[in-house]
Amino acid sequence: MTTLQRIQPEKGCFFPPFKVDFTRSIPIHRQLYDWYQAAVADGRLRPGQRVPSTRSLAAELGVSRAPVLAAFEQLLAEGYFEAIIGAGTRISDTIPEMPAAPVADRSRSRPAKAGARSGSKFAAGLTAGNGPWWNNEGIFRANLPALDHFPARTWASLLSRHASRTTNSMMAYGDVMGHLPLREAIARYLGAARAVCCKASQIMIVSGSQHGLQITARALLDAGDQVWMEEPGYPGAHAAFAMAGARMAPVPVDQAGMKIEHGVAHFPEARLAYVTPSHHYPLGTGMSAARRMQLLSWAARRGAWIVEDDYDSEYRFGAHPMPALQGLDTDERVIYLGTFSKVMFPGIRLGYIIIPEDLIPSFRAVREATDIFAPPLAQAALADFIAEGHFSRHLRKMRTLYMRRRAALAEAMHRRVGDSFRIIGIDAGMHLTGFLPEQADDVHIANRAGAMGVSAIPLSTCYLAESSPGLILGYGNASETQIERGTALLAGVIEAAGGSR
Amino acid sequence: MTTLQRIQPEKGCFFPPFKVDFTRSIPIHRQLYDWYQAAVADGRLRPGQRVPSTRSLAAELGVSRAPVLAAFEQLLAEGYFEAIIGAGTRISDTIPEMPAAPVADRSRSRPAKAGARSGSKFAAGLTAGNGPWWNNEGIFRANLPALDHFPARTWASLLSRHASRTTNSMMAYGDVMGHLPLREAIARYLGAARAVCCKASQIMIVSGSQHGLQITARALLDAGDQVWMEEPGYPGAHAAFAMAGARMAPVPVDQAGMKIEHGVAHFPEARLAYVTPSHHYPLGTGMSAARRMQLLSWAARRGAWIVEDDYDSEYRFGAHPMPALQGLDTDERVIYLGTFSKVMFPGIRLGYIIIPEDLIPSFRAVREATDIFAPPLAQAALADFIAEGHFSRHLRKMRTLYMRRRAALAEAMHRRVGDSFRIIGIDAGMHLTGFLPEQADDVHIANRAGAMGVSAIPLSTCYLAESSPGLILGYGNASETQIERGTALLAGVIEAAGGSR
Repeated sequence: MTTLQRIQPEKGCFFPPFKVDFTRSIPIHRQLYDWYQAAVADGRLRPGQRVPSTRSLAAELGVSRAPVLAAFEQLLAEGYFEAIIGAGTRISDTIPEMPAAPVADRSRSRPAKAGARSGSKFAAGLTAGNGPWWNNEGIFRANLPALDHFPARTWASLLSRHASRTTNSMMAYGDVMGHLPLREAIARYLGAARAVCCKASQIMIVSGSQHGLQITARALLDAGDQVWMEEPGYPGAHAAFAMAGARMAPVPVDQAGMKIEHGVAHFPEARLAYVTPSHHYPLGTGMSAARRMQLLSWAARRGAWIVEDDYDSEYRFGAHPMPALQGLDTDERVIYLGTFSKVMFPGIRLGYIIIPEDLIPSFRAVREATDIFAPPLAQAALADFIAEGHFSRHLRKMRTLYMRRRAALAEAMHRRVGDSFRIIGIDAGMHLTGFLPEQADDVHIANRAGAMGVSAIPLSTCYLAESSPGLILGYGNASETQIERGTALLAGVIEAAGGSR
Repeated sequence: MTTLQRIQPEKGCFFPPFKVDFTRSIPIHRQLYDWYQAAVADGRLRPGQRVPSTRSLAAELGVSRAPVLAAFEQLLAEGYFEAIIGAGTRISDTIPEMPAAPVADRSRSRPAKAGARSGSKFAAGLTAGNGPWWNNEGIFRANLPALDHFPARTWASLLSRHASRTTNSMMAYGDVMGHLPLREAIARYLGAARAVCCKASQIMIVSGSQHGLQITARALLDAGDQVWMEEPGYPGAHAAFAMAGARMAPVPVDQAGMKIEHGVAHFPEARLAYVTPSHHYPLGTGMSAARRMQLLSWAARRGAWIVEDDYDSEYRFGAHPMPALQGLDTDERVIYLGTFSKVMFPGIRLGYIIIPEDLIPSFRAVREATDIFAPPLAQAALADFIAEGHFSRHLRKMRTLYMRRRAALAEAMHRRVGDSFRIIGIDAGMHLTGFLPEQADDVHIANRAGAMGVSAIPLSTCYLAESSPGLILGYGNASETQIERGTALLAGVIEAAGGSR
């Protein structure tokens, strides 16, 4: 290096207002790199501007030349700096002028026009479920099973059986349809318990019923397609079908289930019907044989699909469970959804779709674009849990427990609130739904209850059109003590709101 | 019961052609119920048709009356039968006439018009990834890390630490954004290793980068919105943006990354740019500082979004890793995606999105409609794995291993195939990409290689428009023996296809 070169580059450049922080664990070269990079990015240093020589900068900073060289090397390699032969180093000329904006003050640098910062219109149209009734800790939180009755030790030991295996099947990319032993166990179980008629090859493992709904909606519907939705119905299904751009057609539900004739008369163009025939969500009614036949007959005539969400049919008290619609379907029009959130626990994140054989390619393609496959470890443990009999034993115990809890909750609500909580639905499942008097504001009541630690879902949130007030109370995870305390609190809130007897 | 009632109902009804199967474990009442239900469903029994009395049917079947009573009770309760006072029992009149179709022969009952049985047009337009190059067992399977070098015992013990806890946080409905300790560990790690600037509250845990892409696309785009895609680019991103109905605009990539000026000139209306700036997929190049600044400046001017997919940036050999674009972004225009598929293993199914604060509600709403939340167990174990130092130790070891494997693969391909495999990209990541001669058919070559147990992705599958032939070879899970064998097989296939030197 000649004297000229050592001196000249310092002209027209400046020493950065940068101090090495010797107390930080970040190496000096990295601190320097970060400073230059940020200064270029936020416009404090301009394209073409000279930078000091490594020698003079090292002297200025009071460090050895090595870290300065390392930082400059990286800045050159990545194109922040460029070396001009015989004239030192400068900020790359190819970097566009950036508007100067101090990094520390990001909020001020946002453009004034708010519209420019919004997500999709589509996302803005989705209603996020953020009421206090989703609080897991609240009494009567819907959809929660009796967590403290789950055989967690057995489960943990089945998990560890598979967790330490570094096999392709546990660690690599899994089958889009799911872990085969689990699909075989599910096919056997559903054939016996739900009269569902399927082969393991028709089962796709998903992360719970919401995931199953989302994939099903994308696989079957194009934007603008009309869908019959039970009214009232499951809000998660509204969201999933909205994601696919479907037009929702609310079809009223009575004691016998969805009023098929209403759907045929008012929404004849529908491509799909979403139903919960074994145990309607949220009303808790069962779909009658006549309605089932009407629905199957309509789907076959119209060439439409039926999505049967059998979310909690395993629990039916005092009667034989109603077999699945899927098993009655001679035209392969039914897509059957199940979940382990209620019979195992929600955190397991496993459910399944049973797909008519000729639709499997559509479902596979959507799944690959969505999240590819479900985690193999939980699937392998669950396959063992079913095959080794733990599952049916657990179901049997829970059936007795939930039957008792349901009776206790119904009795306590009747005793404390009387006719102001008109219980509907069959003796089944994990939730009890009741109508409140016509004038009651169920959202207000649920918010008040939420503040006291009671998670009651307002029935009105389950309607697409005109709603009736009511409350959905989950008893799966409610002990008898909690049932007493929760109903006492609820009775107080309902009375204060003017909705009591 | 009078004599009349016992005799009259038998007129106009018939005994079902049903035989009790005493060898089956299914109870008699269930066998009888199933038969009647199926017969009604498939039209063999008509509405209004009489059924025999329980007494005479029991006698006919040679069983006690109890199971027949049980079956009839359920059939009455569910509405298949109705009781006519003084006139016995009949098939419900409310059941619609069903076309008779034997249940056993489902395939024949399908409607002749094939169109009526298709899934969505949308799903039909997705290309499913089903080449032999997705075979996990094949040598050079892309995206697979060194599975046999993963500390599986440590991982199993961290899992069991959390698996036996029956807590709400492990078993109930989890946070839509993810398990907080994991999000905090990721924020700390990314700040130090990737110069990513974020709070734990901006991190959403997802099931890998495909899932992150799908959610991001839905949260930011409406149908018809234009998106800059790197050309060539990641096919999984094509699928995810197609799911949101986006119009794909291919923007060419050269040695310095995406040609921003091309995008500005040809696709000025784009709402979003998808980029892999640290290590381009599939070409393996890094995006220069100038292009980074151009991209950030365009996004700020245009009010557009940048999706930065930092899928394997942890592995950079012989140079400091290139810091993330996200850390340079003063206008919060970058959505940053990461995955644990490559630094842990694909079966873990965990990744993350770093979301600008004001977009979090849009992302939350989409996530709730998609699959609600990620499994807490793996998240808790991963948080510990990072916090206890196993993660950085594993990364360090793998960096050395992959550097060696990359060098060995590059050397072997050069030695065996020479200029017919023109290696591109920087010294980084887990895959090596090379161009084949212009006239080569890379899909044919990959199919032939696949038949021999070599998983090489044809580069042409990564283009939206006009493509160049090449191969993408993953070396993450390839031992040196496999590298020798795999390259020998590949060289033979390339030569046989007329693409060798």
